[in-house]
Amino acid sequence: MTQPPLPVSKIPMVPPRILLGPGPSMVHPRVLQAMMQNMIGYLDPDFIKIMDEVSELLKRVYQTDDAITFALSGTGSSGMEAGISSLLEPGDTVVMCIYGYFCERMVDMATRVGANVVPIRADWGKPFPEEMLEAELKKHTDVKLVTAIHAETSTGIRQPLEGISRLAQDHDAMFMVDAVTSLGGNEMAFDDWGIDYSYSATQKCLGCPPGLSPVALSARAHESIKSRSTLPSSWYLDLALNANYWGFDRVYHHTAPVSMILALREGLRIVLEEGLESRFARHETNAAALRAGLEAIGIKMVAPVGYQLAQITPVWIPEGVDDDAVRHMLLRQHSIEIGKGLGELAGKAWRFGLMGESSRPEYVLALLSALEGILPRVGYETASGAAVGAASQVLTGG
Amino acid sequence: MTQPPLPVSKIPMVPPRILLGPGPSMVHPRVLQAMMQNMIGYLDPDFIKIMDEVSELLKRVYQTDDAITFALSGTGSSGMEAGISSLLEPGDTVVMCIYGYFCERMVDMATRVGANVVPIRADWGKPFPEEMLEAELKKHTDVKLVTAIHAETSTGIRQPLEGISRLAQDHDAMFMVDAVTSLGGNEMAFDDWGIDYSYSATQKCLGCPPGLSPVALSARAHESIKSRSTLPSSWYLDLALNANYWGFDRVYHHTAPVSMILALREGLRIVLEEGLESRFARHETNAAALRAGLEAIGIKMVAPVGYQLAQITPVWIPEGVDDDAVRHMLLRQHSIEIGKGLGELAGKAWRFGLMGESSRPEYVLALLSALEGILPRVGYETASGAAVGAASQVLTGG
Repeated sequence: MTQPPLPVSKIPMVPPRILLGPGPSMVHPRVLQAMMQNMIGYLDPDFIKIMDEVSELLKRVYQTDDAITFALSGTGSSGMEAGISSLLEPGDTVVMCIYGYFCERMVDMATRVGANVVPIRADWGKPFPEEMLEAELKKHTDVKLVTAIHAETSTGIRQPLEGISRLAQDHDAMFMVDAVTSLGGNEMAFDDWGIDYSYSATQKCLGCPPGLSPVALSARAHESIKSRSTLPSSWYLDLALNANYWGFDRVYHHTAPVSMILALREGLRIVLEEGLESRFARHETNAAALRAGLEAIGIKMVAPVGYQLAQITPVWIPEGVDDDAVRHMLLRQHSIEIGKGLGELAGKAWRFGLMGESSRPEYVLALLSALEGILPRVGYETASGAAVGAASQVLTGG
Repeated sequence: MTQPPLPVSKIPMVPPRILLGPGPSMVHPRVLQAMMQNMIGYLDPDFIKIMDEVSELLKRVYQTDDAITFALSGTGSSGMEAGISSLLEPGDTVVMCIYGYFCERMVDMATRVGANVVPIRADWGKPFPEEMLEAELKKHTDVKLVTAIHAETSTGIRQPLEGISRLAQDHDAMFMVDAVTSLGGNEMAFDDWGIDYSYSATQKCLGCPPGLSPVALSARAHESIKSRSTLPSSWYLDLALNANYWGFDRVYHHTAPVSMILALREGLRIVLEEGLESRFARHETNAAALRAGLEAIGIKMVAPVGYQLAQITPVWIPEGVDDDAVRHMLLRQHSIEIGKGLGELAGKAWRFGLMGESSRPEYVLALLSALEGILPRVGYETASGAAVGAASQVLTGG
């Protein structure tokens, strides 16, 4: 093969960004530093201690005493598939509450596994109505699993979970919750809410790079997996094998992504040093400031009051405004990344993320200021300084 | 919940190690530095360029002009499962050449997928005899896939692939090759050897942390996946969806592990700056020195001459020597990690890895010197300095 010579050069650096989309979010400098350590073996006794520490820290963040907690070696979606493929056998009935893009991904995965998938489709952009689940569950006698998403990243809905959990329990079904965008950003009470399996991601509200899916598994769900009559379709994402490597007999499964686990440990330490309550309050305040600023210039939220996530704020793109042009100007002139709409909201919504390290007053102000500069140039007039002023009032408690 | 207060402290650092096991190997400082950059979005146009660059660099390392190359967001085993679950549909016949621990893992995965799995089990610690495959293939008319492992990490065997590839082609079957421990450490000619799918890992001979599985997919294999009549059992590891995100329409699939991809780019740049031929020669020289040293004190290799990998050298533990005690002393007194035996070789073999950044003369000497100090204390007498002397002769070309 003839190939052109390879240019030898210094380490190419990525351009700096203010990440205000649906993730990845900004990474805490301590996390970057933790990740940049010498390598250590994944069966080294000193690394095993670190895994134990990560498990313990995860218990606190998931607010659980009883669950098995560990991190899967893949991104958030791997946590979703691990749950679907480990908790369901072919033919098992799963009832899925559907109210956004990521709910539909669960349907895809469960279909591949050969489960009897019962999707209950409700409106996007509203919380899921429990009565729909109640009515559906009455039609079945053998539901093994009910699924919901705590923080639908496509719509910005914070879904109340206690009612859904109660209904699942009443029908003797397990309850699986997507906490990808909620963990570390708002209350997530695994034990109190009667959850059997939950998974998250490192790059949203935990302040780490993407690459791991921290999960919590109830004793009941673990027993259920161990007593399957068929093996889960996935070996890599088999929750029982992963739990064995992390917590029980340390049986070699795969080579753990050491650097990412060191990053996660530091990210979790930072979360708990800040304190869960303080962290949730910080997310709330910055999101309230953002919403106040956006409302001051007439931009409307997708999620209704009372169900709005602090971490992610999808808004309707004002009529006539060019979606791509605005995002392009934000990125190229202000180094700000925001998210575009997904699924039903593609081309109709922007998604502003204020998650983990990205949830800071200076970024709220920078984003609103940039929007105030850009929007009049794409035909949407705003009163100068109105957005920044309104946000600042919230931030200063005025 | 009442919980004890969390100790607030500085970033806890991992202890330094000389990693001479089956991986992870030492990580190049430039790779660590590349990984410690600010975060950037996984759909950012400047990140897409980086992904293109990684694909291009992977083509060179896989020595392919025609394959689609990208990195899966999981460790090496995820590359194995992606191949098995994407290339095989339930009922498809796969013939697997089995001659070590990792070959058996493929059997497990293919069984989960519901394939018609035909394992051909040959002796561990010897190259796989092609005539066994030839005889088996004659019994079938519908073999979809033949599998082999290029560098069996459990036995240290370098498996010649051309003959197996020819047999697969003669029977119109695709050919899948595990290159986890070979890529970047010895010749791996994807195009010339007629391979349809190959996967590797970042933490062996590429000098990066574990966490990604770099893969190459032939056009024929890609077409085969796109024309499946059922969806692959795994969504996360669906090779067609991953190829779309990396190379074709950039359809959002999952959040790419940005930091790991930045690390991989730097690792691949370093591999190609050194040059493939020089890199392979370096691995050979250091392995030859290690073998000479070990032989000088009567330690025997598992793999026969002519089929020994340079990257990993499994040896028989001398009779009466305490496996655990030696590995413990190496780790605690010399900060050296080596690998233990897997599967049939558990308790019978040690595995010395000299991969990527771990393949350096100083580590060869340090390991042999440490062994010369330790072995007499566990009842195995050696002539003082014999091992280090013999290795040094090889290293200095004497």
